[in-house]
Amino acid sequence: MPFWKIYHPKDVYTAHDKHQMATAITAVYAPYMPKFYVGIIFEEVNENAFYIGGEPHGRFVRIAIDHIARAMPSEEIATRFITMISTAIAPWIKDRGLEWELHIDETPFMMWTVQGIFPPRQGTEDEARWIAENRPSPLVHPR
Amino acid sequence: MPFWKIYHPKDVYTAHDKHQMATAITAVYAPYMPKFYVGIIFEEVNENAFYIGGEPHGRFVRIAIDHIARAMPSEEIATRFITMISTAIAPWIKDRGLEWELHIDETPFMMWTVQGIFPPRQGTEDEARWIAENRPSPLVHPR
Amino acid sequence: MPFWKIYHPKDVYTAHDKHQMATAITAVYAPYMPKFYVGIIFEEVNENAFYIGGEPHGRFVRIAIDHIARAMPSEEIATRFITMISTAIAPWIKDRGLEWELHIDETPFMMWTVQGIFPPRQGTEDEARWIAENRPSPLVHPR
Repeated sequence: MPFWKIYHPKDVYTAHDKHQMATAITAVYAPYMPKFYVGIIFEEVNENAFYIGGEPHGRFVRIAIDHIARAMPSEEIATRFITMISTAIAPWIKDRGLEWELHIDETPFMMWTVQGIFPPRQGTEDEARWIAENRPSPLVHPR
Repeated sequence: MPFWKIYHPKDVYTAHDKHQMATAITAVYAPYMPKFYVGIIFEEVNENAFYIGGEPHGRFVRIAIDHIARAMPSEEIATRFITMISTAIAPWIKDRGLEWELHIDETPFMMWTVQGIFPPRQGTEDEARWIAENRPSPLVHPR
Repeated sequence: MPFWKIYHPKDVYTAHDKHQMATAITAVYAPYMPKFYVGIIFEEVNENAFYIGGEPHGRFVRIAIDHIARAMPSEEIATRFITMISTAIAPWIKDRGLEWELHIDETPFMMWTVQGIFPPRQGTEDEARWIAENRPSPLVHPR
């Protein structure tokens, strides 16, 4: 459900970096939902394909996130959550001297499927099983 | 208006596959709007660039859709529509043993243009002509 | 904050074209916000990867925009703004005989950071400094 697109310059991340970064991001969400909800795509941006303020920028990481399963209940919680995320990803961005920007959109829960299944509502028995097994399975109590 | 991004592993789809899949997706929308509203981009994801639950996944198709021209009037209709879509794309995803996830966002109708033209509202004469001709043309009755 | 993705066919734009186009787009936003808010990614679409109405299309530019910092206050203003944008980008699209479509989504202001900083609200002293310096800096008056 959180669907991350990480646009990054070519050659700044090894496969090992990406794996570690994905693990760190997933750990932020894991207390609240099945781990497999977290989908992350790393996308290399070509040279001369990224512009900030009209100028080419070769050291920028742009992160665009869709949140589907959960909506932030308040600005305070959103701020705290984004701060947690920023801390989690700092070793691969800020600490390497890269610049970055991120934004999150919230999209409708009812228009989302995993393996063709409409996921269980939060706090249900079905969701507890999805969390425990870390994979989707048919709902016992369809929503 | 439906704008599809299909993120898929390298080398799972031929040009023929993509054409057929695009045709099947377009057929789901065609009863409700001009066919040329349906835009689909297939995007290859590099190896070690897609992570699910923090782990690399090489057999996953992630579909992200923006709906612009139409908003779903109810959860029931949304469910039925997404089920139709899932059936339409199954031959290239589920039936090939790939895993997948899809979600739809709804974006503002008034902030959308095709060839610089603000498209006609649903059910108008102008829209009927766009459907019949399968191309945009200046509105006779500007909205 | 405006985050532009420009999906274009391979080999239609040189680095010089992209730089000029990015400059022209940024100029449309510059009267209203810090220039560095404008982020633009050009993304080449492979042959046989873009379909319009179910058919492959090799001369199409698809623009998808997220607006974060500002929401359009009315349909009239949205229309005027999109018309300004269309005029600004015409030399690289319409005037070259390419077809195109664009849509804008609006995403939550409170779920957005630049260099880890939650940007100042519109019209504040902090924002005036960000505009003047064309770079983010810690807020003097946290929002």
